[in-house]
Amino acid sequence: MSQSKVAFIGLGVMGYPMAGHLAKAGHETRVYNRTTGKAEQWCAEYGGSFATTPREAADGADFVFMCVGNDDDLRSVVFGADGALAGCKPGAVLVDHTTASADVAREIGERAEVSFLDAPVSGGQAGAENGVLTVMVGGDSAAFDAARPVILSYARACELMGAVGAGQLTKMVNQICIAGLVQGLSEGLNFAERAGLDGHKVVDVISKGAAGSWQMENRGGTMLDDQFDFGFAVDWMRKDLAICLAEAQKNGAELPITRIVNDYYGEVQEMGGGRWDTSSLIRRFRRS
Amino acid sequence: MSQSKVAFIGLGVMGYPMAGHLAKAGHETRVYNRTTGKAEQWCAEYGGSFATTPREAADGADFVFMCVGNDDDLRSVVFGADGALAGCKPGAVLVDHTTASADVAREIGERAEVSFLDAPVSGGQAGAENGVLTVMVGGDSAAFDAARPVILSYARACELMGAVGAGQLTKMVNQICIAGLVQGLSEGLNFAERAGLDGHKVVDVISKGAAGSWQMENRGGTMLDDQFDFGFAVDWMRKDLAICLAEAQKNGAELPITRIVNDYYGEVQEMGGGRWDTSSLIRRFRRS
Repeated sequence: MSQSKVAFIGLGVMGYPMAGHLAKAGHETRVYNRTTGKAEQWCAEYGGSFATTPREAADGADFVFMCVGNDDDLRSVVFGADGALAGCKPGAVLVDHTTASADVAREIGERAEVSFLDAPVSGGQAGAENGVLTVMVGGDSAAFDAARPVILSYARACELMGAVGAGQLTKMVNQICIAGLVQGLSEGLNFAERAGLDGHKVVDVISKGAAGSWQMENRGGTMLDDQFDFGFAVDWMRKDLAICLAEAQKNGAELPITRIVNDYYGEVQEMGGGRWDTSSLIRRFRRS
Repeated sequence: MSQSKVAFIGLGVMGYPMAGHLAKAGHETRVYNRTTGKAEQWCAEYGGSFATTPREAADGADFVFMCVGNDDDLRSVVFGADGALAGCKPGAVLVDHTTASADVAREIGERAEVSFLDAPVSGGQAGAENGVLTVMVGGDSAAFDAARPVILSYARACELMGAVGAGQLTKMVNQICIAGLVQGLSEGLNFAERAGLDGHKVVDVISKGAAGSWQMENRGGTMLDDQFDFGFAVDWMRKDLAICLAEAQKNGAELPITRIVNDYYGEVQEMGGGRWDTSSLIRRFRRS
């Protein structure tokens, strides 16, 4: 694969290691982060350069990657006077890894004069650090084909799901499935505890069958041990579920249980669990 | 393994092939079924003998296996004047594969003068036919150790979960986990359809990650293709969830979503779906 000139905007727990994989793959990487200290730290670790605005980071880059907090953060780093669009060259490809709304993706797709891909990821912090993320992409196939080899620096799967917005919609399906699944697991394991069963043994026995899931396999044991200081935070899950619920209002999909689980997560936040892993949902049921 | 003299009571979609595996493993197998024609058919296929009452089937057997419909059926084949307990010899082990309440298991455990194991299974009809069921057992370890090699004629896993009743309680955890999981999957795939995504592609991409599950892997595609004429029937799931909800009333576990999903399955029954696979829950959401 040929080396490219790339920009990476947003060095959070996901973006920091993702940008690191780009540099390690030999791409000329310039990073931007709202807090400059983080960008300096990144350069000390990976040897790229940093910019003080998204515009400066994007200047001359073949690919401009972004991974920020939410729709508003995204609009700001894309559309602002010092935003990426103001800096990027014709023919550049803009790739957004933020989990955001399909609407903001379409808005950028329509307003940008360069190609845009919405490309939310799954796999979490560990997936970013190990470079094994799954990337769900919306956009046109020419831009996708160009960006895919670069994205594979930090991903093990990168799939084009449809037009701009389809990446975000796919990520929403992912989060909706997880909401019901973790709820079922929480009710089930809480029931096991109250029934006096050895929960670990129950998980061992049932995880190979029709009740089995990634969550049961990877979180069942830690749920039973009441460990939640890792993983995908409840605060982020609520942000994502709000996006799902807003989109469902538009496309007419009923999400009755997703809505209730979102409320339960609100109760977990009230318990002080905003930073706990999503599997901490069981604590909502343990306490009653 | 030494060959035993065994009885099998209840030749339904599960019991019929399970009893067949016992005969094929060389055990001297006598079967009983409420409808005698099925027992005759079984003998024609597997070459054992049949009895016209549970009592007669149990007479002289080392192990008496049962797999019937519900608590009342179970009480009838165990306690009736022509029931298994009236026929079985001292030292026999009674093994119940019905998914039933923990209460009826404890009732049999207390009243029976022989050893009793509650031993519900998972793996469905295909698991029974292929002899690869998972068996969750409650009872004492001596009876378990004696029965386990015989049970492995039709199971690939057979685990002692605790005292009498613990097998049923473990099966309940399994069904509770499935209820939330299938609900999340139904909401997610219905959302995918309404969002205009290629559902099969979505399942391919997300099933390897944190949203992945046995249900997504094995039922996601058939849900999208609207195929439900196979698998674990909604009628049976409702029976099982009723058992879970009744037990939760006693142990204090909150099952708010399990309760709602049970109601949704009631709506699927009203749609004519009592015999559809549990994944048909998505039809409840497609129609709205």
